[in-house]
Amino acid sequence: MSGDVTRIHTGKPENLTERFAHRAAYMHPSEIRSLFAVASRPDIVSLAGGMPNLTALPMDLMSNVIGELVSKNGMEALQYGSGQGHPKLREQICDMMALEGIRAHPDDVIVTTGSQQALDLISRIFIDPGDVVLAEAPSYVGALGTFSQYEAKVVHVAMDNDGLIPQALREAITSTRASGKKIKFLYLIPNYQNPMGVTLPADRRTEILEICHSEGIFVVEDNPYGLLGFDKPSPNAMRAEDSENVIYLGSFSKTIAPGFRVGWALVPQSLKEKLVIASESSILCPSNFSQLAISSYLADQPWRDQIASFTKLYKTRRDAMLESLEQHFPAGATWTKPGGGFYVWVTLPPEIDTKALVPKAIVAKVAYVPGTAFYADGFGSWSMRLSYCYPTPERIREGIKSLGGVIKTEMELRGLN
Amino acid sequence: MSGDVTRIHTGKPENLTERFAHRAAYMHPSEIRSLFAVASRPDIVSLAGGMPNLTALPMDLMSNVIGELVSKNGMEALQYGSGQGHPKLREQICDMMALEGIRAHPDDVIVTTGSQQALDLISRIFIDPGDVVLAEAPSYVGALGTFSQYEAKVVHVAMDNDGLIPQALREAITSTRASGKKIKFLYLIPNYQNPMGVTLPADRRTEILEICHSEGIFVVEDNPYGLLGFDKPSPNAMRAEDSENVIYLGSFSKTIAPGFRVGWALVPQSLKEKLVIASESSILCPSNFSQLAISSYLADQPWRDQIASFTKLYKTRRDAMLESLEQHFPAGATWTKPGGGFYVWVTLPPEIDTKALVPKAIVAKVAYVPGTAFYADGFGSWSMRLSYCYPTPERIREGIKSLGGVIKTEMELRGLN
Repeated sequence: MSGDVTRIHTGKPENLTERFAHRAAYMHPSEIRSLFAVASRPDIVSLAGGMPNLTALPMDLMSNVIGELVSKNGMEALQYGSGQGHPKLREQICDMMALEGIRAHPDDVIVTTGSQQALDLISRIFIDPGDVVLAEAPSYVGALGTFSQYEAKVVHVAMDNDGLIPQALREAITSTRASGKKIKFLYLIPNYQNPMGVTLPADRRTEILEICHSEGIFVVEDNPYGLLGFDKPSPNAMRAEDSENVIYLGSFSKTIAPGFRVGWALVPQSLKEKLVIASESSILCPSNFSQLAISSYLADQPWRDQIASFTKLYKTRRDAMLESLEQHFPAGATWTKPGGGFYVWVTLPPEIDTKALVPKAIVAKVAYVPGTAFYADGFGSWSMRLSYCYPTPERIREGIKSLGGVIKTEMELRGLN
Repeated sequence: MSGDVTRIHTGKPENLTERFAHRAAYMHPSEIRSLFAVASRPDIVSLAGGMPNLTALPMDLMSNVIGELVSKNGMEALQYGSGQGHPKLREQICDMMALEGIRAHPDDVIVTTGSQQALDLISRIFIDPGDVVLAEAPSYVGALGTFSQYEAKVVHVAMDNDGLIPQALREAITSTRASGKKIKFLYLIPNYQNPMGVTLPADRRTEILEICHSEGIFVVEDNPYGLLGFDKPSPNAMRAEDSENVIYLGSFSKTIAPGFRVGWALVPQSLKEKLVIASESSILCPSNFSQLAISSYLADQPWRDQIASFTKLYKTRRDAMLESLEQHFPAGATWTKPGGGFYVWVTLPPEIDTKALVPKAIVAKVAYVPGTAFYADGFGSWSMRLSYCYPTPERIREGIKSLGGVIKTEMELRGLN
């Protein structure tokens, strides 16, 4: 072909695809992206998003704290900062983590642009194309997207209402290694999991830590919701038990506000330097402005009371959702009963395709995320994630009622009632 | 070996290096990192850093703007935002780029966590290991670090006092392709280049655009300093002439303040979706808090006057540096005469190793960045970058005098005077 001959001579690319990196083939729009555009219409009750509810946040107080920061310490707050993150904030992060049993040194904390950036950096230092990441089944959609861009293969590990099942983890490790693949880490959300809402009990935490330690597999413990327990505190963090093999991810997005984009990774010392260098290459340094806004707020304000206010607000909404699910969802549907966090996971009869059902739900003015979004392998088609974090209890009841109607109609259509 | 046999059976990694991704081997601490720690000592005149000088920024006014933003619009400013960036800010970015001749649509702008993140995202969508990135000789150290982490090979293209030499670009393309490698893009800083301080004239811009267009090579135009011209505006941006083949990077770090970490990429439509997806995977969304702080400032305040104040401040410092270089540097040293921006590039006789000279300069209480930092290939050992952005004119004169003494002594030692 003359085209090939030309290319050999000139090295000039023939088309756009040829100009991209191989990994760009894994950059597709997420299937829930267009859903969120629809779900943000004011006439729709959105049970789809995971946006924290900021109505409990005292904006005048935040305004004073931040205004004073800039007038008194603007030369630092508006300047470049350390690639690892501001030392003062890293100390305060250690104080916050102590609430979940973690004893850590600020030197081992790396501040990131939300914990999403920590996921990206961990992927960057560990994942070669074809490597395996173990993850809960189902798992956080944003983590799955990142792993996929680094060309990892995600192997899901079965869960029940107590989270990840240790025996399923053992089996996944054995079968993955039998296939010749390298396992780089286990990614999990032990508290009020996204999307299932379930919590891993203390004994399973220990068992999973032992398995991963003995198999040489890092544990990536993602814990954005840990302080948002409704009736009792969550069990101690897994990092509290194992400082050598656990990479812990935290975030202020749900305990203060997500608009700052401040999260962190607490890492074993052996990983710190590589992660800091990766972060500097990625963003140079996290925002001093955002970091010091949070630091000033933590230093001066009753932030534990504020978290208690958030928790109260979310508990009311969780109750509204569970009550109306009982009232309006058909027999044959089951759901989790979260003890904290943002999410309920609903399982329907396997004949129901929740993705195909989205347009009907939208017509009924309610939105949710279909279960397949939370699997790397197409599973989950008869489940859905419902978020109670953002709408008012009244709107939640209204939305669940409408959605119950849509599901009942669909089940009738399929002769399932 | 029994070790190997064991590994085959269990798949368990033997050591930490085996657990990392291949690219982690390219994550070394930069050679200038330890330098910056020393250079930040108050007794040292640092001509090393590139920190903008925020003394001209009216902090009380910034404090009011930001305080009001949070009290009036905190529910948006502290919430998650769009992955592509806030629509209002993207419009204002287009207004700002119009000052350099760019006509752009906000839909084609992607807001990033500083322009460093844009460099990271562009590397991510384009670079496979072994691909070639063309860059000026010398080039920005932060860009070289990112390209290296994506396992690119950087091919430097020669410059003179008018920036990149078009004929050298042609030759680099020919020889790179003859070696069978793929060229993914040309990275350059046309205005007040970091580290050389030189500016590419309009006719060379056109010639370089034509070369890259006809060869199927994207141009990544990094322009953090374009509005900081001292005596006349910089030539129109390259993007003003070519909207199809130029990826333009901008930043508020030098025109407002770096602590916000807000930059942007203006990209050809064909690249937008992949870049947005890559950014969402990397940070979910840029900070609404930072974006809206900048947006409010741009909407309400005389930001062009503010840029004029910055420019005046930097011009005074540039003058102080050039004058004292004339006074105190030996014959045999030459340097660039920047028309804007932050940097002067000094070339010494080739017998002088500027990296080896750093400890002697520190003893004389002055710091600079040795030239090798700005090359991917070890070149630059007899050159240095001097920044005049941050210290006062008096301190600059003091530092240049000391450094001139250190260089003269070194030249005498080597019989070069």
